[in-house]
Amino acid sequence: MASDSEAQRALQYEQTLMYGRYTQDLGTFAKDEAARLRLQEGDTPRPRRPSELLEYSQGRCAPCRVCALQCQRFLISKVGEDWVFLILLGLVMALVSWAMDFAIATCLQAQKWMYGGLDTNVLLQYMAWVTYPTVLITFSAGFTQILAPQAVGSGIPEMKTILRGVVLKEYLTLKTFVAKVIGLTCALGSGMPLGKEGPFVHIASMCAALLSRFLSLFGGFYENEARNIEMLAAACAVGVGCCFAAPIGGVLFSIEVTSTFFAVRNYWRGFFAATFSAFIFRVLAVWNKDEETITALFKTRFRLDFPFDLQELPAFAVIGIASGFGGALFVYLNRKIVQFMRRQKTINRFLMKKRLLFPALVTLIISTLTFPPGFGQFMAGQLTQKDTLVTLFDNQTWAKQGISNEFEYLGILEAWHHPRSNVFVTLIVFILMKFWMSALATTIPVPCGAFMPVFVIGAAFGRLVGESMAAWFPDGIHTDSNIYRIVPGGYAVVGAAALSGAVTHTVSTAVIVFELTGQISHILPVMIAVILANAVAQSLQPSLYDSIIRIKKLPYLPELGWGHHEKYNVRVEDIMVRDIGYVTLNCKYRDLQQVLHSTKMKSLPLVESAESMILLGSIERAQVGALLSSQLSPQRRLLTLRQKVLPEDGHRLSDSSIRFQVRGATTLGDAWSGCPPPPSPYRPIPAQISTETSSGTPARPALRKPLKPALKRVHSSPPDSPPAGSADHAGIALKNLFCANAATEPTEEEMILGDKMTPAEILEWEEQQLDQLVDFSSAKIDPAPFQLVEHTSLHKTHTIFSLLGLDHAFVTSIGRLVGMVSLKELRKAIEGSLTGKGVKVRPPLASFRDSTASTTEADTTALRQLWDRHQHHHMPREAGPGGDDEDTPKGQ
Amino acid sequence: MASDSEAQRALQYEQTLMYGRYTQDLGTFAKDEAARLRLQEGDTPRPRRPSELLEYSQGRCAPCRVCALQCQRFLISKVGEDWVFLILLGLVMALVSWAMDFAIATCLQAQKWMYGGLDTNVLLQYMAWVTYPTVLITFSAGFTQILAPQAVGSGIPEMKTILRGVVLKEYLTLKTFVAKVIGLTCALGSGMPLGKEGPFVHIASMCAALLSRFLSLFGGFYENEARNIEMLAAACAVGVGCCFAAPIGGVLFSIEVTSTFFAVRNYWRGFFAATFSAFIFRVLAVWNKDEETITALFKTRFRLDFPFDLQELPAFAVIGIASGFGGALFVYLNRKIVQFMRRQKTINRFLMKKRLLFPALVTLIISTLTFPPGFGQFMAGQLTQKDTLVTLFDNQTWAKQGISNEFEYLGILEAWHHPRSNVFVTLIVFILMKFWMSALATTIPVPCGAFMPVFVIGAAFGRLVGESMAAWFPDGIHTDSNIYRIVPGGYAVVGAAALSGAVTHTVSTAVIVFELTGQISHILPVMIAVILANAVAQSLQPSLYDSIIRIKKLPYLPELGWGHHEKYNVRVEDIMVRDIGYVTLNCKYRDLQQVLHSTKMKSLPLVESAESMILLGSIERAQVGALLSSQLSPQRRLLTLRQKVLPEDGHRLSDSSIRFQVRGATTLGDAWSGCPPPPSPYRPIPAQISTETSSGTPARPALRKPLKPALKRVHSSPPDSPPAGSADHAGIALKNLFCANAATEPTEEEMILGDKMTPAEILEWEEQQLDQLVDFSSAKIDPAPFQLVEHTSLHKTHTIFSLLGLDHAFVTSIGRLVGMVSLKELRKAIEGSLTGKGVKVRPPLASFRDSTASTTEADTTALRQLWDRHQHHHMPREAGPGGDDEDTPKGQ
Repeated sequence: MASDSEAQRALQYEQTLMYGRYTQDLGTFAKDEAARLRLQEGDTPRPRRPSELLEYSQGRCAPCRVCALQCQRFLISKVGEDWVFLILLGLVMALVSWAMDFAIATCLQAQKWMYGGLDTNVLLQYMAWVTYPTVLITFSAGFTQILAPQAVGSGIPEMKTILRGVVLKEYLTLKTFVAKVIGLTCALGSGMPLGKEGPFVHIASMCAALLSRFLSLFGGFYENEARNIEMLAAACAVGVGCCFAAPIGGVLFSIEVTSTFFAVRNYWRGFFAATFSAFIFRVLAVWNKDEETITALFKTRFRLDFPFDLQELPAFAVIGIASGFGGALFVYLNRKIVQFMRRQKTINRFLMKKRLLFPALVTLIISTLTFPPGFGQFMAGQLTQKDTLVTLFDNQTWAKQGISNEFEYLGILEAWHHPRSNVFVTLIVFILMKFWMSALATTIPVPCGAFMPVFVIGAAFGRLVGESMAAWFPDGIHTDSNIYRIVPGGYAVVGAAALSGAVTHTVSTAVIVFELTGQISHILPVMIAVILANAVAQSLQPSLYDSIIRIKKLPYLPELGWGHHEKYNVRVEDIMVRDIGYVTLNCKYRDLQQVLHSTKMKSLPLVESAESMILLGSIERAQVGALLSSQLSPQRRLLTLRQKVLPEDGHRLSDSSIRFQVRGATTLGDAWSGCPPPPSPYRPIPAQISTETSSGTPARPALRKPLKPALKRVHSSPPDSPPAGSADHAGIALKNLFCANAATEPTEEEMILGDKMTPAEILEWEEQQLDQLVDFSSAKIDPAPFQLVEHTSLHKTHTIFSLLGLDHAFVTSIGRLVGMVSLKELRKAIEGSLTGKGVKVRPPLASFRDSTASTTEADTTALRQLWDRHQHHHMPREAGPGGDDEDTPKGQ
Repeated sequence: MASDSEAQRALQYEQTLMYGRYTQDLGTFAKDEAARLRLQEGDTPRPRRPSELLEYSQGRCAPCRVCALQCQRFLISKVGEDWVFLILLGLVMALVSWAMDFAIATCLQAQKWMYGGLDTNVLLQYMAWVTYPTVLITFSAGFTQILAPQAVGSGIPEMKTILRGVVLKEYLTLKTFVAKVIGLTCALGSGMPLGKEGPFVHIASMCAALLSRFLSLFGGFYENEARNIEMLAAACAVGVGCCFAAPIGGVLFSIEVTSTFFAVRNYWRGFFAATFSAFIFRVLAVWNKDEETITALFKTRFRLDFPFDLQELPAFAVIGIASGFGGALFVYLNRKIVQFMRRQKTINRFLMKKRLLFPALVTLIISTLTFPPGFGQFMAGQLTQKDTLVTLFDNQTWAKQGISNEFEYLGILEAWHHPRSNVFVTLIVFILMKFWMSALATTIPVPCGAFMPVFVIGAAFGRLVGESMAAWFPDGIHTDSNIYRIVPGGYAVVGAAALSGAVTHTVSTAVIVFELTGQISHILPVMIAVILANAVAQSLQPSLYDSIIRIKKLPYLPELGWGHHEKYNVRVEDIMVRDIGYVTLNCKYRDLQQVLHSTKMKSLPLVESAESMILLGSIERAQVGALLSSQLSPQRRLLTLRQKVLPEDGHRLSDSSIRFQVRGATTLGDAWSGCPPPPSPYRPIPAQISTETSSGTPARPALRKPLKPALKRVHSSPPDSPPAGSADHAGIALKNLFCANAATEPTEEEMILGDKMTPAEILEWEEQQLDQLVDFSSAKIDPAPFQLVEHTSLHKTHTIFSLLGLDHAFVTSIGRLVGMVSLKELRKAIEGSLTGKGVKVRPPLASFRDSTASTTEADTTALRQLWDRHQHHHMPREAGPGGDDEDTPKGQ
């Protein structure tokens, strides 16, 4: 019983390790593990396996089983390849994307059908027009709330955080996947101005995570964290790629919105998966007879010979600059709405009670305003998002061109035509209304993105400028003999790319529009507009995703702005925390207790001594806690008691848990006597893993993670066969983890023995224990925590933090620990100096730099102290704190 | 005189520092410096400046001057912005590109004209056809050889190396720029199958380097190395962008071929500059009336409605796979030719003497074979590269489609038509001949790239497949009512992208072809073919650029291949060098001498003591040498002598160099006595820099780089005014660098005094000096060299090395130095395990891992030793090497 719960705890500990903050080291560990498992799979021919299993299934279909096993083995050997994973991911996501598109189209069709069928009664029509989306959105919000609240919103901010190495719980689970897919389908089916691109990035990532978990049933290849991160990055590309059938734009967009540093060696993964996914997605459309062949999603047919004139470029530049301001305004508006909703206590309290009221209310307002016979007639209200885009990218010119060629609005184009006003009014109303509607709609707690609504608004704005130009120059600008009319559709393309680029702070929207429209002839206008829009928007507001990250208070590292040279003057010494807790090698358990009380850092530095402060490594807070609880554990107390009171009784007790306990104590004793313990005979390698002992794996990894792969492998054997080595495993896990994760649930017998001590005695014993020196031999110490020096510039620190995905770094000076910088300090420093733009804002400490001694001398002094100490042949100076250590952190 | 040469040396030392290996730290330093200078420029209104200068020019045009100065000041404040630099770079490169294109076109036109004019006599025609390119290539080769041999070849391999942080001398100078531009123009003007894209990357980088050097005349902003690297990365994008008028493809291609990790925050720079450059480049064409408006370089006019059928995809896949093999073969062939030329001693010796013979010979062979009336008629010999591409991307189908529609070859298309054979034969001959010709031609020592020739071959191959398909399915594949004929031009586009992608190992050639042709309708076939080609080529050969890097033996770090999981099992401890020299804090000068003799490392680790081996920092080899030479310098000897023999004589000598010497000795004395020296009164801040003393810069950076910015600023004052503080500067530089870079040229007086000692006395004195303990107070110590731990996997090590551009890293175990890994070891390890693909190749040491103690225990043992040592309260155990340190590096 006890050993089972130990094993359980061992697994939990394992999981804590896997999902802990030491992503990098664990990544390494996971890789080792994966390689080891793969070696065992790949190198050894494993002739025994089928025969072993045949013993269980001697009966009917033995050859059948052998064949199945061989197939399985072949699959296992292939499943480890990256490309298999990427193809599967692309396939699944293409199917999901297509199925969702189909469902959304059906939903929208149903609304149109209802609306069309009730054209005899305007009130009934209105009821149908309004009720349908309200029900869908309310369902979506409720469903998401109940199943997985993590599915709400875009998902790109969360993916950016996850790709930084931070683990967000429950964000990549099956529950969230289901909630997001169904919620998004309903939300988009309602016809609200919502997008699917952000959620698709999230869905693809969840798909990748689930797929890798599924594939890891066939082997341990996918338990490698670093590889999973690479796969998640590819998945983000797939998400955008199969949403827009834009593989290149998808890859670039996902890089821009989720990464700060991108490994070119992962590049092909994204391209491969996104291309495959986009291909399947479009093939499904052909197969469904929607299309004759594979073409772009919003195909345009602009003339190739003379797409635009050079003299039109200023108009494109105007679109870019205006889109920049518009994009910044959108982000600002979106944030303000969220903040307003949060701040208004009364509204907030009311809405918290009736969570579904807010979505319903917003939907009601928006759908009322778009009701086609009502206000919707002035803003093309009956068009779906897709239809709107198709009409906006239309090849023809809508504005009157002289009197002779009055344009005939045919088909869905008619929506833009109002008998009592002209197309300019419709476009302006459309832009203004959609702008706030989109900003409002994206705050609804359903799975939704903002890319597509913004894209549509941008296209409308571009169209507006284009139509104006066409009205202004009815015969085109070109001065030569040929008349090249102005193409307002091209302006719409430029506007769409510029506004979406401004909101998301990306340049790759340019590539997305080329792939969406299937034409690249407007490349220069698009590039110019996108770059100008980015320049304006980036100097005014953070990107929409960064804005959401800040609202959601996710851990993040702000980007250094464009050419903020003043950053170069801030150094680590200005921003670091000097007053940090630490653990010394020769400290007592009481000191550990004190440090745990005084600091909240997740990882504590381990220094040689309080006097030298030479940094040796870092130790996790949990480990320190474990050391302490191990020292004060009832078991140890019992042991002491037993050794003191009943020296012969201890030998009588021979159940395993006590034996391990003695073993633990012996190790402890060894540590005390100061000589290394002999190789432990209590550390056998788990039975099923040790089929090939020469596979070059040290014992530790096998022991650190003893149960999971072994049990996974067992699953093909019949359930009634006893799990041969599981008791043994539990024992090993217990043995291995004993010291660090000491048993806090003593066995019954021990409890009885323990009860013999009075509380006063226990207290006394504990006080006595606390005064002992700490034995670090069982603690997991990170031997190379990341170090900076005091003079490292903020710019460089930022680069290193974002390159390596660090959470904190210790600051050392010639090996001596002098401080610590964490993400928080860095963030403060960057944002602090960002606030005052024109004025040079210097952190408070920077101004002292001039007056203090020059840095060379500081370095030299530190060095000389050390050197000096050596000259005096290690004079024992333990007691005194030493007047020369003026910035010694507290903690002891 | 002496002080002048000291100043000179100080400057040289400065330059060594700037171009040393500590790129990162120096980058930081440079940033600080730039920020400081900018602060002084920007914050202080500097009212005195014009009036100061007016004193010199009281005469005629004082208001004029004031105005000019104000303009200058405005310019200076703007010149620091990134976008100004990028616009200038884009503009210059567009002009260069356009001018070169113009010159090349003229050259080719001249050849055609000569060839056409002599059509009466075939022999004369042949002479003209052959002589013209031979002369041009020979001139190009000779010119480049004489002016700057660094200009030879592509330039992308070198840029990749430079962007990794390695400094290649003379690669970014004006001389190389001139040589490359003129050499490339001549080489391409000859009509040989050579490309301009690789050289353009190099040219753009040189342009950026020169521009930043030019702009730094206006201020110190461009002396920042990290920023220069960012600008170089943008320049690479500009190079490709303005060569093909392909901004997006240019950015992506340059990222793929030059970076391993890409900072997304630099992304916009590339896009901005490349777009601007491509825009200007195309505007120049419009301005020159070549084009009516801005369009693609090789505009295609494929139909938009039905670009290709789904059933044609296998053919595209075949193109991709075949291109993959072809690309690998091209790289292999190219390398073999170079290696063959090198190995053949006799040929080599002969060619070394007559350097221009090889280019002339190759040109002669190639031009003879392409002579249009000769063999050239079977391979469209008279077409230039550009014409070839235009014809290959042609919209029509060349192959006979039934009997009815015999295709009329019009204009330049006629070249592909041979009366006695068909177009298939011409295409096959063209592909085969051009293949080896291009591989051979790119080995000629002229500035040339291989991208364009490969691109043309790929297009021809694609056309061949397309024509075959068109002949096979004369009425298209599509089964519906409409007849959609096959478009062989589309196949040509796919083939071009696939083969160039295979040779360069890039995916972005896909984007380049879209931008080159102005059509994106074939996106899926192109992507599929490029990905397949990459998959095949990458598994067979390195990319062309990596191949050249290996041939040229440039420092590089091989990429980890696709999914080489066995890498995960190799660890740092298997590949690290354990036997490294080191410097201890309490070592003697004799030890320094010994270390310098025993090791060749550029940077030595500094450890606390040989016993503890705790790593404190690293010290450059040059610094160790300086310490040693300073200790044994004649000056110190003289000083000792003087203090001993003539105690009153020393006071009499009061020239500056002796005074500083005394000062140096005092510092030394301070160090010996073990207490920090008082703030030095001998360290004034240079006069011209100290206009704003509150600008927050510690004294050290100002002193480290005292001369350059100050002197640069002086240049606007009249040349006859005496450089006010220069003598003072020299003094400061001398003072500052005295200890580290001790005077090796004693003044005459000192020489005379020194001569009084006999060689035996000198030797005795030196021996005595060598036994003293080293004073590190004056040495420049890198306090945080990069550290790894023994268990770091090869994969992670590779990531860290390529992320941070490291050259070496120390391996530590709980603070103790245990080894070192440099680029060399890493390269060996990666390539070692790459050789045997199927078999698991493990480095020799890995097999010992299983038998040795488990890694946890090793860690614990080390920790316990340290801990144990502390328990014994610093018992002096200096002498014994300690049996427990079994892997202590030698060196003492």
